[in-house]
Amino acid sequence: MKPLSRKETQAFVPRMPFNQHLGIRVTRVHQDGITIECPLRPELMNGAGVLHGGVTATMADVAVGLALQRHFGRMTPITTVELKVNFFRPVPDGKIVARSHLLRVGSRVMAGRVDLFDAHKRLVGAALVTYILVGRSNP
Amino acid sequence: MKPLSRKETQAFVPRMPFNQHLGIRVTRVHQDGITIECPLRPELMNGAGVLHGGVTATMADVAVGLALQRHFGRMTPITTVELKVNFFRPVPDGKIVARSHLLRVGSRVMAGRVDLFDAHKRLVGAALVTYILVGRSNP
Amino acid sequence: MKPLSRKETQAFVPRMPFNQHLGIRVTRVHQDGITIECPLRPELMNGAGVLHGGVTATMADVAVGLALQRHFGRMTPITTVELKVNFFRPVPDGKIVARSHLLRVGSRVMAGRVDLFDAHKRLVGAALVTYILVGRSNP
Amino acid sequence: MKPLSRKETQAFVPRMPFNQHLGIRVTRVHQDGITIECPLRPELMNGAGVLHGGVTATMADVAVGLALQRHFGRMTPITTVELKVNFFRPVPDGKIVARSHLLRVGSRVMAGRVDLFDAHKRLVGAALVTYILVGRSNP
Repeated sequence: MKPLSRKETQAFVPRMPFNQHLGIRVTRVHQDGITIECPLRPELMNGAGVLHGGVTATMADVAVGLALQRHFGRMTPITTVELKVNFFRPVPDGKIVARSHLLRVGSRVMAGRVDLFDAHKRLVGAALVTYILVGRSNP
Repeated sequence: MKPLSRKETQAFVPRMPFNQHLGIRVTRVHQDGITIECPLRPELMNGAGVLHGGVTATMADVAVGLALQRHFGRMTPITTVELKVNFFRPVPDGKIVARSHLLRVGSRVMAGRVDLFDAHKRLVGAALVTYILVGRSNP
Repeated sequence: MKPLSRKETQAFVPRMPFNQHLGIRVTRVHQDGITIECPLRPELMNGAGVLHGGVTATMADVAVGLALQRHFGRMTPITTVELKVNFFRPVPDGKIVARSHLLRVGSRVMAGRVDLFDAHKRLVGAALVTYILVGRSNP
Repeated sequence: MKPLSRKETQAFVPRMPFNQHLGIRVTRVHQDGITIECPLRPELMNGAGVLHGGVTATMADVAVGLALQRHFGRMTPITTVELKVNFFRPVPDGKIVARSHLLRVGSRVMAGRVDLFDAHKRLVGAALVTYILVGRSNP
């Protein structure tokens, strides 16, 4: 099966209210993942005037989740088992960019890593995210 | 120094735009941490109609960060080094509650663990979050 | 089914070569997990003369894995999906103790948290560990 | 300052008892990290007859730690703050290989990611590891 195009992958976003609310957009698709970005705006900031780490964590989660949806070629019932993210630099303005690489797509467990960048292409964080296929029985 | 009261800790939130935007509130303070909650609303959900994992990760980050601010007794320049969160159950409605326990408050590195609950007091996730004190030099 | 006793849980260890090699022993069983310990010896140390973090990470993995074996009441085919561990203090001598709490035992995914202590009962680390049941198909 | 050669980096290992005990060797140095490997032997296995996850976690920790020592050009007082590792496939024989990439070397906090391979160059795991410089004051 051919992986979805950028447009087809982007088409998932309006069905994901929090992603839509944050303003996340799919900007590129790659052989092993996708790139998404989110423009900064005042209500996404923390008390220090830089992007809130919760938004960065969300970007990591979404970059792997959407790459998996794209890989499966349709809205597939997956759920995040766990995520881990390191923050290297504050992001004061512009946008946050997340590039995911799927590392493992098993029959039940899937995992990807994510590089996070600011508008100047500086690495601002890195993440590992684990998903599971949700079957009829509860995971 | 006496740790801050619930009201004094809550007073930090309006200075933190994303926390304020999500609707996070400090509901209790404890000897070793705090409890915060966030009511669910449509724009915080994911494509499966349950709370987005990014909001859950944000709650973990904030529960430790605010517990540290409370511990220091004033708005202190700290930043999240990394966070890790496990998701055990979907949260379809009501609210998400995060109870932090500070595990280590060193002179530079601080860490806490967080239990995450739904409105029915079921454990829906768990997290470990690491902070660092931001000095004059860059961390 | 009644969870296994300390002796019955300890009986798994000789079948696990690395655990046996490190000298890990089950010292207590609890309603929600187990306590294991490992005496320090010269070859478990790092270049700074304190316990190597790899041993601490191993203790976290084992404390959850053995608690799950105990929970299932027999040697069950489970495997670690991922582990995350924070290190709070060096452990220069005595022993390392790991107390696991099972947080989630689903039909496929299982997770526990671990508190790590030194011989003086000081908290030296904390961990979250995720396991999966290994079925006929590959995870 | 010129980063150390493979031989100079390897020279740290005999001063690190647990690494020496496991049989870890530095096999390559790269612009942004190092490659280490450890031959499998019976006492490193778990109850399922494959490499124990604790050894894999140790490899991740060491691959970043030694890359940092190499970067600093001398035995520098650093300590692991936390590590997180995903396991994708069992490693039944041969060796385990860890390739680290330093992602952030700040004045206090340092982080790297690690790809873990088996003898057939299959990706068997991935990790993120955070270190801190240990100064005169306690971290």
